[in-house]
Amino acid sequence: MIIGVDYYPEHWGKEFWIPDADLMRKTGVGIVRMAEFAWSRLSPKEGVYTFEWLDEIIGIFRERGIKVILGTPTNCPPRWFCEKYPDAIPVGRDARPNPIGIRGHRCYNHPDFLRHAGDMIERMTKRYAKEKTVVAWQIDNELEANFCFCKRCTEKYRAWLKEKYGDLESINKFYGNEVWSGEYSSWEQIDPPFGTYPAAWLNPAYMLDFNRFASDDMIQYVDFQAKIIRRNCPEAKITTNVWFCENMPDFYKTFAGLDFVSFDNYPPTKIPEDAGQFYSHAFHLDLMRGIKRQGFCVMEELSGEPGCWSPMGRMPYPGMISGYSLQAFAHGADAVVHFRWRTAVSGAEMYWHGLIDHSNVPGRRFKEFEELCRVARGLKDIAGTQILSEVAILYSADNEYAFKIQPQTNGMYYLGQIRLFYEALMKYGLNIDIIGEQEELSGYKLIVAPEMYVTDPEVVKKLYAFVKKGGTLVLTNRSGVKNKYNNCIMEPLPAPYRELVGCCVLEYDPVGYDHVAVRFADGSNYRAGQWCDILKPEGEETKVLACYNSEFYKGSAAITENKYGSGTAYYIGTVGEQEMYVHLLEKILQECGIAYIEGLPDHVEITTRTGKDITARFLFNNAGEVRQFILDGKEISLQPFEMRIERSDIK
Amino acid sequence: MIIGVDYYPEHWGKEFWIPDADLMRKTGVGIVRMAEFAWSRLSPKEGVYTFEWLDEIIGIFRERGIKVILGTPTNCPPRWFCEKYPDAIPVGRDARPNPIGIRGHRCYNHPDFLRHAGDMIERMTKRYAKEKTVVAWQIDNELEANFCFCKRCTEKYRAWLKEKYGDLESINKFYGNEVWSGEYSSWEQIDPPFGTYPAAWLNPAYMLDFNRFASDDMIQYVDFQAKIIRRNCPEAKITTNVWFCENMPDFYKTFAGLDFVSFDNYPPTKIPEDAGQFYSHAFHLDLMRGIKRQGFCVMEELSGEPGCWSPMGRMPYPGMISGYSLQAFAHGADAVVHFRWRTAVSGAEMYWHGLIDHSNVPGRRFKEFEELCRVARGLKDIAGTQILSEVAILYSADNEYAFKIQPQTNGMYYLGQIRLFYEALMKYGLNIDIIGEQEELSGYKLIVAPEMYVTDPEVVKKLYAFVKKGGTLVLTNRSGVKNKYNNCIMEPLPAPYRELVGCCVLEYDPVGYDHVAVRFADGSNYRAGQWCDILKPEGEETKVLACYNSEFYKGSAAITENKYGSGTAYYIGTVGEQEMYVHLLEKILQECGIAYIEGLPDHVEITTRTGKDITARFLFNNAGEVRQFILDGKEISLQPFEMRIERSDIK
Amino acid sequence: MIIGVDYYPEHWGKEFWIPDADLMRKTGVGIVRMAEFAWSRLSPKEGVYTFEWLDEIIGIFRERGIKVILGTPTNCPPRWFCEKYPDAIPVGRDARPNPIGIRGHRCYNHPDFLRHAGDMIERMTKRYAKEKTVVAWQIDNELEANFCFCKRCTEKYRAWLKEKYGDLESINKFYGNEVWSGEYSSWEQIDPPFGTYPAAWLNPAYMLDFNRFASDDMIQYVDFQAKIIRRNCPEAKITTNVWFCENMPDFYKTFAGLDFVSFDNYPPTKIPEDAGQFYSHAFHLDLMRGIKRQGFCVMEELSGEPGCWSPMGRMPYPGMISGYSLQAFAHGADAVVHFRWRTAVSGAEMYWHGLIDHSNVPGRRFKEFEELCRVARGLKDIAGTQILSEVAILYSADNEYAFKIQPQTNGMYYLGQIRLFYEALMKYGLNIDIIGEQEELSGYKLIVAPEMYVTDPEVVKKLYAFVKKGGTLVLTNRSGVKNKYNNCIMEPLPAPYRELVGCCVLEYDPVGYDHVAVRFADGSNYRAGQWCDILKPEGEETKVLACYNSEFYKGSAAITENKYGSGTAYYIGTVGEQEMYVHLLEKILQECGIAYIEGLPDHVEITTRTGKDITARFLFNNAGEVRQFILDGKEISLQPFEMRIERSDIK
Repeated sequence: MIIGVDYYPEHWGKEFWIPDADLMRKTGVGIVRMAEFAWSRLSPKEGVYTFEWLDEIIGIFRERGIKVILGTPTNCPPRWFCEKYPDAIPVGRDARPNPIGIRGHRCYNHPDFLRHAGDMIERMTKRYAKEKTVVAWQIDNELEANFCFCKRCTEKYRAWLKEKYGDLESINKFYGNEVWSGEYSSWEQIDPPFGTYPAAWLNPAYMLDFNRFASDDMIQYVDFQAKIIRRNCPEAKITTNVWFCENMPDFYKTFAGLDFVSFDNYPPTKIPEDAGQFYSHAFHLDLMRGIKRQGFCVMEELSGEPGCWSPMGRMPYPGMISGYSLQAFAHGADAVVHFRWRTAVSGAEMYWHGLIDHSNVPGRRFKEFEELCRVARGLKDIAGTQILSEVAILYSADNEYAFKIQPQTNGMYYLGQIRLFYEALMKYGLNIDIIGEQEELSGYKLIVAPEMYVTDPEVVKKLYAFVKKGGTLVLTNRSGVKNKYNNCIMEPLPAPYRELVGCCVLEYDPVGYDHVAVRFADGSNYRAGQWCDILKPEGEETKVLACYNSEFYKGSAAITENKYGSGTAYYIGTVGEQEMYVHLLEKILQECGIAYIEGLPDHVEITTRTGKDITARFLFNNAGEVRQFILDGKEISLQPFEMRIERSDIK
Repeated sequence: MIIGVDYYPEHWGKEFWIPDADLMRKTGVGIVRMAEFAWSRLSPKEGVYTFEWLDEIIGIFRERGIKVILGTPTNCPPRWFCEKYPDAIPVGRDARPNPIGIRGHRCYNHPDFLRHAGDMIERMTKRYAKEKTVVAWQIDNELEANFCFCKRCTEKYRAWLKEKYGDLESINKFYGNEVWSGEYSSWEQIDPPFGTYPAAWLNPAYMLDFNRFASDDMIQYVDFQAKIIRRNCPEAKITTNVWFCENMPDFYKTFAGLDFVSFDNYPPTKIPEDAGQFYSHAFHLDLMRGIKRQGFCVMEELSGEPGCWSPMGRMPYPGMISGYSLQAFAHGADAVVHFRWRTAVSGAEMYWHGLIDHSNVPGRRFKEFEELCRVARGLKDIAGTQILSEVAILYSADNEYAFKIQPQTNGMYYLGQIRLFYEALMKYGLNIDIIGEQEELSGYKLIVAPEMYVTDPEVVKKLYAFVKKGGTLVLTNRSGVKNKYNNCIMEPLPAPYRELVGCCVLEYDPVGYDHVAVRFADGSNYRAGQWCDILKPEGEETKVLACYNSEFYKGSAAITENKYGSGTAYYIGTVGEQEMYVHLLEKILQECGIAYIEGLPDHVEITTRTGKDITARFLFNNAGEVRQFILDGKEISLQPFEMRIERSDIK
Repeated sequence: MIIGVDYYPEHWGKEFWIPDADLMRKTGVGIVRMAEFAWSRLSPKEGVYTFEWLDEIIGIFRERGIKVILGTPTNCPPRWFCEKYPDAIPVGRDARPNPIGIRGHRCYNHPDFLRHAGDMIERMTKRYAKEKTVVAWQIDNELEANFCFCKRCTEKYRAWLKEKYGDLESINKFYGNEVWSGEYSSWEQIDPPFGTYPAAWLNPAYMLDFNRFASDDMIQYVDFQAKIIRRNCPEAKITTNVWFCENMPDFYKTFAGLDFVSFDNYPPTKIPEDAGQFYSHAFHLDLMRGIKRQGFCVMEELSGEPGCWSPMGRMPYPGMISGYSLQAFAHGADAVVHFRWRTAVSGAEMYWHGLIDHSNVPGRRFKEFEELCRVARGLKDIAGTQILSEVAILYSADNEYAFKIQPQTNGMYYLGQIRLFYEALMKYGLNIDIIGEQEELSGYKLIVAPEMYVTDPEVVKKLYAFVKKGGTLVLTNRSGVKNKYNNCIMEPLPAPYRELVGCCVLEYDPVGYDHVAVRFADGSNYRAGQWCDILKPEGEETKVLACYNSEFYKGSAAITENKYGSGTAYYIGTVGEQEMYVHLLEKILQECGIAYIEGLPDHVEITTRTGKDITARFLFNNAGEVRQFILDGKEISLQPFEMRIERSDIK
């Protein structure tokens, strides 16, 4: 397994380069990412190119056997570019150019920007095409879907719509534009969503399409870069580094044309006072692995106190830096690149701490990193192994967008409900896949599909087939609400899934922050909130698993189970506390015949990687306290953030 | 009594129209409001008119004996209009056109908008002039005072000032513009209040006038429409639907030229955990009745979960939909139109639920509505009856504006203090009028005049005369503070009312969220807050009813009573908890000789409508629990939101 | 000692002038400030001047022996000016002119504004040059550093940079502009910090320089005015009135060319429910005295309820108005001017209450003011006496800016930490100086230097010398972090102070709102938060005074003491609760040999003024309750806000 660092030679005098590279080699650093913000150093003036320093530092790494990932430096065009092409600065919702001075100051669609960026990438890729040390390319940095509102992007949005719908009549029809006299009679009437009011105030069909366009348009920009890189460096791997940002692209489409996924992974450093509030990034890591259903790379990994975009956060607790790297391996990463080697002494990010402090004196965190490198070297046999899972959770970019556009009720978040299932499954020590809703489902015993809100008929068909053939499916409230245009389906909910789950929603109560009681047939009680579907069981084999135990609909069904074909479909009409899912899923796992581990303490995470000849079980304590438990008859004790890796040969 | 629905034929395929209308007839729907957002369907392109569909649906209703209210569709000009006349879009405080895509995207003063709107209204009214089914017209929709800051509106504001004051010298004088060198030396120096800082940072005299202008200017737009409708449809009734919005117009002036008041009534659907926090819309309904001192119409009434402008709220509790409609009748409405027949499946308002859900399967709420229609049919004898009251509360648009411009202290709201009196009176089962301060007072025994802040000398004169002739008046803190220009009066408070109440304010303490103690002569103690006037009784017959019992002014008078002429004037120098008003008003009611009911439980509302031959008493339980009590010796039990109507013939 | 009032003759009819002046004389008012907003009354049209009314009112005061301070009325140019020169209105971060209608609507750098302002000051100063009654001039009003973003100010910012750095290469180097490709290649690429995101998102070196420019540029405007006044009125004293505003200038540089400091002093009127939260303005007063290290003037002093910029606050408690004026004397003021004589009846500030209410009937507050005047007359012998202190706290404008630009952690404020020391010292009844970090330190026994964040090498040198010669120094966390460009110093913290304090910071934990435990060698325990430096004692004589007693670094040093030369340097690595400083400073005072008072109750403030022949001790109870204590063997009892002054002749 590879441990790397993000390194900014351009931030440091040359006198630092060789000592830094020597220390990296000694420590066991295998790869270095560079150059993604270095445009002004590679081309300080229009037409002037100064690649020599980059040649030199690449050479330094080559000599020490350290591989290099190069970033295309297109996130930050130099000031000379901004001065010359002021209208290449992205335009905000207020119809005015964003102020520059931070980063990301380039419109993906400005022809001069594309010309200059293309030229830079062309030169870089040609220059390093034969350089074996450069093993991969990162496109730009932390790209977001295109929320530039300039005239050029507006034109592209109109063109995107024209290609999708052909004519305005279709748009008016599929958007329901008759509401509030919103019918378009010319293409020029279509604008991006200017203004800062909540998205919910605008037509949700229009808004969902705008989000899709914004994602597609960003991907077009990714593909523009990938094409140049591919042409000049056909053997190098290509990626871009994503994160959970405000304007998220569709991750599945983003990486369709790229070679591997990379992710910027910054788990919170604060240990919560209420241990129940501990947040695991395992969820994000599994989601990343699921994008291409293969190993991935962490391109930026926690290395010290975060700062810069807000006041500084807590110092990483001993074990966190190492533990969270190993956690990434445990969930399918094959390389983890730490951000960053040394903390910057200038610029806005000077308090986003690296492995080494401003003082350049390696300290506690660096020692932990050294130990991590040592451990990672011992994991060579695990590289390339797989994470095999019988359970998958479905995720959909359309749902992500649609719920952001129209928040259903106070406290309800799409990813929040997905996490409730994820964390309940994690309590049972399972490998869990998180995959796109469009993915193939064969091979899974259990599919959990929370809030299937925007409906893709192909997905519906696939889920029916999955259950019919014997699979187990869990569906929830807010499924089947919308057609693919983001308009409501005129059928009783869960509309297309009604037959599958054998029940329908008589009425719903958006309870928001209020609490209701849910009672299971076995007498166990749970608190629920956010939403209550009042269910009417309809199928011959529909069983009521739990009822509401408060409100005027006390006694009405809240959770049902239905036989369909050879399989089973569950419907959960409300959003319960974490324990409710733990309770319910144990029953479901048993009925699916999925082997699971009982009695794991909170925040102990167990996953397994499987290779041709080896199985490695990762036991991780993602808590600030020692955890003790019995596993396979043996007593295990894990220190805070300790990762234990148990190998067994495949017999 | 009439029950109606708001209906959007343009949102649904024609195949829905006849089934919908049939179901309405069967259910007992008496009236339908339509067309107030349908401009793009009535004129899809400039010069093209497509009224045929509206003819058709009106015909369908005509055939079923259902009357129609038509809205002028001027709230939402079509996109072709916006494209052709971009400067007809209202301009915000930031001096830039508001983004469009929601609604209300038209400047009341743009000549091309007025020309197109006038033409549309002209055509509609001519077309349906002879159509007896169309019984009323609604002007635009939920109009707000004119806060457009475009050049045209700025000119109109200057012209309004010129007409009011004649010259700049007067403005400078009456505004006190010598402060901060704010003196105007040309009309062009006068702008609307650009910028987003608090209103209090600007000259309050200027701000009050701007609010008055904004209201007057909206009313001019109403009158522009009313004139066309009146000319073509002299027999139809004209209204516009108001609500408590951010930029409220003066309701009294708004309806001066119209035939009846209509109101959009959305009581909260969440039952508060603290029953003491239950909010009654009775107050709003009585305020609406008081605008023209006659029966009114609810043009939009709660029908399901609210949503769209924020995440969805709670589902209406059983009984709410019916109960709140009947509550409107109990407070003087003669028609209640429910918003809306069926929930929209597209557009931003798709989660503002109607009587029928997206599924088009009528459910629990629709059943309740059916029952409501049945009940309403049984109330024919009550239609046109009156609500007679011996008590009136005064309200003033000027005060509303002036308190919004300069919030006096934390927690103090003008309507909030009015409600404290209103709810205390409601505890005694009284009919309560809420009337404009300019209204005639004869016939009342008790006038409650909270916070008579901006002084109209005519009103002062009237109140003196009212008390002199034997009336009882309750005045409060923050009365007589301002002259009609919104400048402070240079006299000890309550300035013009000093003689009437027989006391003056030595000093005041804006206590805000802090609490003080108030002690009555009978030893009862109450918590007060927000404001403390330290009173000095001055009249020969001034009695101190209560003193402060905390702070350094402990022992100073807080509430006084004064004989004046044949009547009595009370002055309440602080803002107490609800119970303080209940306590004090019992004494006052007794002294006025107003009969009242004792011992009503919280949230039981009793009002009486009186006709020539009949008296009907409405008993309403506005709480989520059963209420039991004794009335006239009989035990009464009311379910949550139950309305019981007791008739007695006039003997 | 002089008591004065702020008076606005232009707000009142002439019929008020003589009665007002007579009452002032009778009451004992010694000085009146006028005219700082009166431009439109002095020049109602371009080229028209109307000084006669000002002549007249000055004459009225002259006849009554009342001195006058005149304000230059440049804060508010008249509307005719704004109409004629719309681009003289300051431009905001959104690159658009600020809306006018409040005040401060002038760009310091607009040539027409400077021409008109210069002309007005020229005329005023010439007119009153011989008028002995006019004893001082106030420049403009409550000036803020120049945050105008207009083209003209942008040019000046570039010129300021050009003068400071000479070339772009230096700027790029000292700013670390290689980060995010921020390197300038032309001067036109340098803009002020447009946009409303947090300052921390921009390059901190750039931001600190912009703050310095903004301060310098305001001072240039001050000097422009001072030069005219000085030329025409060489004998008059010149000042400007400052306060703790959002865009603070460097106070030390601001007053370098002026004659005395003046300050607008508005202590909070609300007595906190938690007495521990009582806020003393003593800190601000001492900071003001320290600016020029001489007596100062309060130019605006609390006189009644504050209002206008927010809802009204509480009425001043009896004793506050008098007590807070005397508190200013106790901390070195020689004159206190009350804002304002009578409350305005028009304009936005009508609820910022003066001594007399809107009614013009003097009340409780005015009686207190009369008594204050009487007391002040009895303090003639104290005028001109000095406040001698053995302790100084250092303050730096650079730190103020730099911490605002990059908040270090939740809850940490520069002035907040300074106050912790200040209030601990105040518990010991000491005179405390607060002085600029650039000041001479000789004469002090103890220097407290909290958060010496931005490093001035001269200051470092001075502090080493101070300790070497036997002084005692207290340093804290976040010292030596930045070089003078606001970039991080590449050395272990506290970098330049490492040798002096004999320890270094191994690592730090930005704990923010979390709490940690600190334990002293004597077993006493305190709560700390915000920040934890984990210290490594390095010197031979370094002692650990306290350790952390929680977190994984439990047992690590938190507070150290080091002998250096003949002196001692303490380093406090965390931010403790108030009591921790009280505990620690007692030890330090003892070791320094500074005499102090023991056992003072909370909020009793004792300071001493010393003259040639007299010593006056001021005993002030800054609390809402009686305070009793023993002092010099005598029992003292102080009423709320009571000031007792004890004289003793110098023997």
